[in-house]
Amino acid sequence: MQQTVKAYGTPAADAPLREMTIPRRSVGAKDVEIEILYCGVCHSDLHTARNDWGGTVYPAVPGHEIVGRVVSVGSDVTCFAPGDIAAVGCLVDSCRTCKNCAQDLEQYCTNGFTGTYNGKDKHMPELRTYGGYSGKVVVDDHFVLKVPAGLDLAATAPLLCAGITTWSPLRHWKVGPGSTIAVVGLGGLGHMAIKLAKGLGAHVALFSRSESKTQDALDLGADRVVISTRQEEMDAVAGTFDVIIDTVPYVHDLNSYIKTLSASGTLVLVGFLGDLQPMLNTAPMVIGRKAISGSLIGGIAETQEMLDFCGEHNITADIELINMQDINDAYERMLKSDVRYRFVIDMASLKN
Amino acid sequence: MQQTVKAYGTPAADAPLREMTIPRRSVGAKDVEIEILYCGVCHSDLHTARNDWGGTVYPAVPGHEIVGRVVSVGSDVTCFAPGDIAAVGCLVDSCRTCKNCAQDLEQYCTNGFTGTYNGKDKHMPELRTYGGYSGKVVVDDHFVLKVPAGLDLAATAPLLCAGITTWSPLRHWKVGPGSTIAVVGLGGLGHMAIKLAKGLGAHVALFSRSESKTQDALDLGADRVVISTRQEEMDAVAGTFDVIIDTVPYVHDLNSYIKTLSASGTLVLVGFLGDLQPMLNTAPMVIGRKAISGSLIGGIAETQEMLDFCGEHNITADIELINMQDINDAYERMLKSDVRYRFVIDMASLKN
Repeated sequence: MQQTVKAYGTPAADAPLREMTIPRRSVGAKDVEIEILYCGVCHSDLHTARNDWGGTVYPAVPGHEIVGRVVSVGSDVTCFAPGDIAAVGCLVDSCRTCKNCAQDLEQYCTNGFTGTYNGKDKHMPELRTYGGYSGKVVVDDHFVLKVPAGLDLAATAPLLCAGITTWSPLRHWKVGPGSTIAVVGLGGLGHMAIKLAKGLGAHVALFSRSESKTQDALDLGADRVVISTRQEEMDAVAGTFDVIIDTVPYVHDLNSYIKTLSASGTLVLVGFLGDLQPMLNTAPMVIGRKAISGSLIGGIAETQEMLDFCGEHNITADIELINMQDINDAYERMLKSDVRYRFVIDMASLKN
Repeated sequence: MQQTVKAYGTPAADAPLREMTIPRRSVGAKDVEIEILYCGVCHSDLHTARNDWGGTVYPAVPGHEIVGRVVSVGSDVTCFAPGDIAAVGCLVDSCRTCKNCAQDLEQYCTNGFTGTYNGKDKHMPELRTYGGYSGKVVVDDHFVLKVPAGLDLAATAPLLCAGITTWSPLRHWKVGPGSTIAVVGLGGLGHMAIKLAKGLGAHVALFSRSESKTQDALDLGADRVVISTRQEEMDAVAGTFDVIIDTVPYVHDLNSYIKTLSASGTLVLVGFLGDLQPMLNTAPMVIGRKAISGSLIGGIAETQEMLDFCGEHNITADIELINMQDINDAYERMLKSDVRYRFVIDMASLKN
């Protein structure tokens, strides 16, 4: 039997987010019902709320960095029990049968995964999925993660998107002790990339356009900062990096970074979807077997692996905790990059 | 003591190739002196002769697909003896000490490898290296390959550039039984890519702009041909290929090929060095973890591996044997893609 829960969302692209009531499906045999404790605030939330990418169906309720407490489970659920601390990331469903799903790559489901918000809801086909800016969520147990004991729960929430989005390429390209990597962009994703790569044992550099972020990067664990606007600093790291995690969400010139890759190195775009300008020059790619790739969030098994790793290494995000009612101000500050490094909503405030 | 040998080269960018005499160094302790029997004709030969890339120093003697017979060896050479059939490819030296050389990646030598022609000659610093359009060559034994018994020697010559250039990415990206790959472009490199990928056990498609090459591709061993100008054929192979070997030497649109990569797939450019136009769209790369890379020839150990593999599987190039005196006509025909699939010079004709 369908239930209704309190949420924060927006009825239109040009309206601020406000309190609303949304439906949640009744708990099916494979479902886990979670009371949401914390929800991270991702740039995608803002883009979806404002229909920056097109395709938003209203009302829209963002949020895909969810940590909460299990309140009930369906009859076929064996891995979760009421009281467990659980998490939900960017995906709540996929076809489970295609060749990518069969390899635990649900994020590349050839039939399209179901996003945690603004996705086509298989259970309530007349609706889009609603995200974590809400009191509760009901999710198939395959897409629910276990949160290891000992982590700060609010600071764990951003691992579900910012964390896994940087973890997946670090693992796919086998970053570990002996690896030399670089991160472009020091935001929610970039700061997690530094922490996770350091946790994996790599030597980590941050590329920054100015010195203003140098101390922050070092404090986060980076071994060095390369000022990308200084040619002599870029020349000094030519041929250096095995992997570059590029978190910049807008178009930017990749050519100068490619020169800093080692032979067989890869620059991985995790933030920018669009046409590459200026034109990419292939000569250094051919002459050094250097690659450019993209990478999208991560699979469910890989997300659990990342959470377990963070539990073992006590890695969480640096966050600023806000109340649900502050979300519109938070969006404005995000647009000015005025956050170190992720806003997380204390969902208890939704009851205010 | 320096010796002189007969060769074919050009004194200027706008002059035809003609017979000339060039110096070869005396045979040092680590050197192998080879009487050249056959030399393949690569597009790079033509570009260098005509200074299409700039940087050519004249007189220029092209040729880096060399098969010949050892006539003498230096006192420290243990792996070759007079009478052996040996081969030389695109490299005749490198620093041997950088991190890439230390990994048998001499082609990515951070100090710059010595090209077989128009390279800075370490032994005769006042000269550039002279290539295989000549009667003999003297090469450090580390850069001399063994030719397995049983192969047609003339048809083996193109393996030293066209072969290794396609073999290296097939091996680096782990193509084998179960792999599904595609080749773009059916020239000297493309036809070798088909043969080698089939030899490795992969399912192989050729992308072609028209049906005119379909039968040729099937005859070479391709499993299918996809006409890239037909949208329905391209749609039918969306998400299909683990690796695409792109041999096209001029600028072309990669976006439609990227859509045909499977998740985690890689398109490898082996022919085009320059600015990518039209602009590359990163969305399908991010959403499917798809990569674009370059790749340059191959290392020496890998070249020997490729030759040994070709010996076991009786793989050689499809060639048209010419006399040295026909080289200028051959260049004109190459510019019209009028060759199936590689010209090889019978160096006995140099004695005419």
